[in-house]
Amino acid sequence: MAGAVNLAAKLAGFADPWAPRTVAAFNGHDVMVVKVQGEFHWHSHAETDDFFLVLDGVLDIELRDRTVTLRAGELFVVPRGVEHRPVARGEAHLLLIEPTGTPNTGDPATAAPRRLA
Amino acid sequence: MAGAVNLAAKLAGFADPWAPRTVAAFNGHDVMVVKVQGEFHWHSHAETDDFFLVLDGVLDIELRDRTVTLRAGELFVVPRGVEHRPVARGEAHLLLIEPTGTPNTGDPATAAPRRLA
Repeated sequence: MAGAVNLAAKLAGFADPWAPRTVAAFNGHDVMVVKVQGEFHWHSHAETDDFFLVLDGVLDIELRDRTVTLRAGELFVVPRGVEHRPVARGEAHLLLIEPTGTPNTGDPATAAPRRLA
Repeated sequence: MAGAVNLAAKLAGFADPWAPRTVAAFNGHDVMVVKVQGEFHWHSHAETDDFFLVLDGVLDIELRDRTVTLRAGELFVVPRGVEHRPVARGEAHLLLIEPTGTPNTGDPATAAPRRLA
């Protein structure tokens, strides 16, 4: 049990996009910050909902039938099994929460390694 | 599956302190916003970690051996079983995540009812 986690300070510590950094643990989940820019892959997670909170910038979460646009201070939960593609036209900073070990691409073969901030 | 959840807009919809409003569901948890001011009760949750993210204002999370002070953009997870007392000297706005049904006081007899924003 460490102290307060300052999200902006954690984000200032790295630059590579689509590479989440774990900042806290919560009920078997990793709480992560990530910088994103451009298009991610279409994917889904069969076993977990997918939590997105935008801290800075704008994120489009494309679903097969619509797009959910998130700005700073807005969140969206993609239900398990639902295909989605995150797209950021500029750089965006996100808070993500996923069960520890969840592959960010939906596929362990292509997933980013989990790293501490 | 609704659309984007704007946390400030949800917070603007109510005024009563220490009365969390659920804004999304995530893996069996309620994602909630709450306005707090003053001292809460000393309590702990035997079965769940307790997630706090400050959206606005300042929150002290008193532990038995120290105090963790959180400002906007800072988070802290109180591990399960650890006694804590949230204290806000001014009004603070928080994002909370707890398993659906968790009593906010640690005791069903004194817990605030769960309400949707």
